[in-house]
Amino acid sequence: MKKRIFEIISRAENGDRASRAFDVSIMALIIVSILSIILQSYASLATRYAKAFSILETITVGVFTIEYLLRIWTADLLYPDVKHPRIKYVLSFMAIIDLLAVLPFYMPFFAADLRFLRMVRLLRLFRLLRVFKLGRYFDALQIIVQVLRKSAAQLVISVVLCLFVMLFSAIVMYTVENPVQPEQFPNVIASLWWAICTLTTVGYGDVYPVTTIGRFFAAVISLVGIGIIAIPTGIIAGGFSNAIEKKVEDEEEKKHYCPYCGHHLDE
Amino acid sequence: MKKRIFEIISRAENGDRASRAFDVSIMALIIVSILSIILQSYASLATRYAKAFSILETITVGVFTIEYLLRIWTADLLYPDVKHPRIKYVLSFMAIIDLLAVLPFYMPFFAADLRFLRMVRLLRLFRLLRVFKLGRYFDALQIIVQVLRKSAAQLVISVVLCLFVMLFSAIVMYTVENPVQPEQFPNVIASLWWAICTLTTVGYGDVYPVTTIGRFFAAVISLVGIGIIAIPTGIIAGGFSNAIEKKVEDEEEKKHYCPYCGHHLDE
Amino acid sequence: MKKRIFEIISRAENGDRASRAFDVSIMALIIVSILSIILQSYASLATRYAKAFSILETITVGVFTIEYLLRIWTADLLYPDVKHPRIKYVLSFMAIIDLLAVLPFYMPFFAADLRFLRMVRLLRLFRLLRVFKLGRYFDALQIIVQVLRKSAAQLVISVVLCLFVMLFSAIVMYTVENPVQPEQFPNVIASLWWAICTLTTVGYGDVYPVTTIGRFFAAVISLVGIGIIAIPTGIIAGGFSNAIEKKVEDEEEKKHYCPYCGHHLDE
Amino acid sequence: MKKRIFEIISRAENGDRASRAFDVSIMALIIVSILSIILQSYASLATRYAKAFSILETITVGVFTIEYLLRIWTADLLYPDVKHPRIKYVLSFMAIIDLLAVLPFYMPFFAADLRFLRMVRLLRLFRLLRVFKLGRYFDALQIIVQVLRKSAAQLVISVVLCLFVMLFSAIVMYTVENPVQPEQFPNVIASLWWAICTLTTVGYGDVYPVTTIGRFFAAVISLVGIGIIAIPTGIIAGGFSNAIEKKVEDEEEKKHYCPYCGHHLDE
Repeated sequence: MKKRIFEIISRAENGDRASRAFDVSIMALIIVSILSIILQSYASLATRYAKAFSILETITVGVFTIEYLLRIWTADLLYPDVKHPRIKYVLSFMAIIDLLAVLPFYMPFFAADLRFLRMVRLLRLFRLLRVFKLGRYFDALQIIVQVLRKSAAQLVISVVLCLFVMLFSAIVMYTVENPVQPEQFPNVIASLWWAICTLTTVGYGDVYPVTTIGRFFAAVISLVGIGIIAIPTGIIAGGFSNAIEKKVEDEEEKKHYCPYCGHHLDE
Repeated sequence: MKKRIFEIISRAENGDRASRAFDVSIMALIIVSILSIILQSYASLATRYAKAFSILETITVGVFTIEYLLRIWTADLLYPDVKHPRIKYVLSFMAIIDLLAVLPFYMPFFAADLRFLRMVRLLRLFRLLRVFKLGRYFDALQIIVQVLRKSAAQLVISVVLCLFVMLFSAIVMYTVENPVQPEQFPNVIASLWWAICTLTTVGYGDVYPVTTIGRFFAAVISLVGIGIIAIPTGIIAGGFSNAIEKKVEDEEEKKHYCPYCGHHLDE
Repeated sequence: MKKRIFEIISRAENGDRASRAFDVSIMALIIVSILSIILQSYASLATRYAKAFSILETITVGVFTIEYLLRIWTADLLYPDVKHPRIKYVLSFMAIIDLLAVLPFYMPFFAADLRFLRMVRLLRLFRLLRVFKLGRYFDALQIIVQVLRKSAAQLVISVVLCLFVMLFSAIVMYTVENPVQPEQFPNVIASLWWAICTLTTVGYGDVYPVTTIGRFFAAVISLVGIGIIAIPTGIIAGGFSNAIEKKVEDEEEKKHYCPYCGHHLDE
Repeated sequence: MKKRIFEIISRAENGDRASRAFDVSIMALIIVSILSIILQSYASLATRYAKAFSILETITVGVFTIEYLLRIWTADLLYPDVKHPRIKYVLSFMAIIDLLAVLPFYMPFFAADLRFLRMVRLLRLFRLLRVFKLGRYFDALQIIVQVLRKSAAQLVISVVLCLFVMLFSAIVMYTVENPVQPEQFPNVIASLWWAICTLTTVGYGDVYPVTTIGRFFAAVISLVGIGIIAIPTGIIAGGFSNAIEKKVEDEEEKKHYCPYCGHHLDE
């Protein structure tokens, strides 16, 4: 029976109807759950259907919790040759996502204190991680993890370089602009907001230099910094671009070969 | 006679004067029609020459409707080997454009109800599709369709990824900023406007985060998201770039060969 | 004597001191002239040294006019095998620049009418073209003309595509936003300003959609349009990038060969 | 003893504990020093812990000054075959950084005059250069110097081109917009701020053209200029991207060879 449960909660193979039904149910529940987060953002809907949203959330969390526990229970079938398969599973990327996606529901029980209310609100953002649960069923979402993992070494170096450029820019602008605009550039951490807005070229226009020397530094920082900030952006974009291209090529390759005997179909 | 009409409404071949005259007339009417849309946007012109614009629109729609019907009538000459050539033609891309380009004129007859007035105004935007009718005569406009079709598979995956990133960003910012700026971030769909403005780096500055945690998330979202949003943009730009380059190469190739006998002219 | 004047006004060859002195004088005069334009923009300087600026401008224009006339006079030495060498020279790119760079000075004589005062002010912008006169002496400025000429065919197609996308976007936004923001989107030509600001991702924030449907269209237009606008930008950037790289390579190549006998110096 | 000091202040080799301790101390002092600059930007912290910050700064400068003098003293061991090793060292990039990083501390002694107070504040920015001292210990920071040096020739040409485009744009916009917005475009240098904001596509929205002709020029300048400004940005981004990629490849290569005998480990 344990083996049957493992088969059902694993991604369905051809012909396994129970497993397929389980997959579709989980996927539907994830999408309904995300939709309910969007709908709840409308104050009028949130109050009118408060009870419905509450029930839906309880059901969702209930199902996801049971799914989580079953996955831990059957972990020894997933990793048959590992000494502590359950510990290995609990520490895997998807298991952490599964846990964090239900955790906000249980938080109020542990931290009922009103002081933590604002933090609980933020913790509810973890519910968004449910989208990543879809990664089990859609390969497109697995691309994200693959791309980030593939270019991890380059990303780390370039992100460190970016943070350095941002901090440097923020300190320069704080020194130059703070005496004239103490409200816009109160301290270095607040100046970081200007640095990020400028170096990504978003430029909201809520904070900008007004002194001549500040504008001179902003000009130099913009021209040099944009080039440096463009590196991680370029790495990510390039990584995804390659991954998508390869996926399309793979799919085209598949069409030419019979999926059963591997025979080339065109010749 | 039907064959002659088909020849005339088809793109002119060398020496066919009647067909050439028809092509030029239709092109002129399309351009005049677009110019009249632009001129009508000036309130003073729209009122002073209201009658002239109305007559022009009636003539334009009249000609385009006759052209549309003639094209359906002669569809069996366009697709000689197809069973239902007219149905095939009506469902083709250019025929749908032709239909939508005249439809707004006939809408008031069907939906005279005042409630639909605003919608009718929007439907009048379909008149803009007349520009695509030029696609029959200018190859440059056909590039658009070709490029989008060629990279369709990649575009679909990357657009899905983009929508996901945008929705994710919008929900995060709604959760973080709504309590402080309920007017700027009233709900998730409204937060999407912020997400798109930021991730495309347009940054109008009408909506931006003000809380520290909101700015932190905005910074992270900007740096990661811009990389992901850059993918479809890059695919489209790359696709057009290749198409233009190839077109230029093809034209240069043409110069070396006689267009009549295919003889190489340089040797 | 005519031949000697031609040698002097042509770019100096090694050892020709008079020609070298002429080149340096013209270059100095160009730079002084541009600097005076910048300094005159300061109202206080413009009034205090009004006479000095006026004398400087008269001298500059006088020298440039004499230079222009001498170049026309010696045109038959520049194009020895051409039938009408002076007409050919007058119509050349550099000669038109030379003429336009002095023309604003003579305009008031022809159009003293006060109604043309504003236009004269704009015509004074032609004085800026003097910078291009430097192109005779600095190869880096000649890169601009070369790059634009090399990718002219591609640029024309992509610019037409851009104008089309901009006009299309402007008409759509005018239709959608005009009823709500008649002052921001008064007509299609004014909406073009929004289209350009958005599609180049500059996003000043002076004009932006406020209706839900306007924001929806703005989002779609941004994502598609930015990709299309990126093409001419990319072509220009790519062209300059290649030209600079090639120039650097050429200079490195030069170092390996003796400039006198062409002997390879490393071996 | 001089040789031992030289070994200690040089980057530690395997097993040299004193040298390693010296390196770590200097690195810690640099980071503490930068952190104190950030913390001092909070007015409340700056006043409450004024004395602590002052003591920390004195210690930091003291240590860095001694380090600087020791490095000059042992310069003859660093460049054994050079005639004037100390002069050569003082003029090296890292030695200038070392000097500038402590100089602001000693400035008040020389320029105690109150008129220089604002300039002293700016000079304190040199303290930020201490970050570059880390370059001795982290290879990632040395990438900056390498990348800039490698593409120096290309960067110089493209930066000159950029400055030219910016100045040209600024003069055009000053001429066109100054009569209507004398406060936003008071002179050419102030118009440069607009030019830089627009050409980098940051677009804060504090300065923008309002006249029709100004908007027309702004549109043309944007489309052409963004392409030209993109070149140095592209060169820098490309240079860093290559450097990072090469570094990652080198590290992967290292894994295949024994670091002791150079033996290939895979075969």
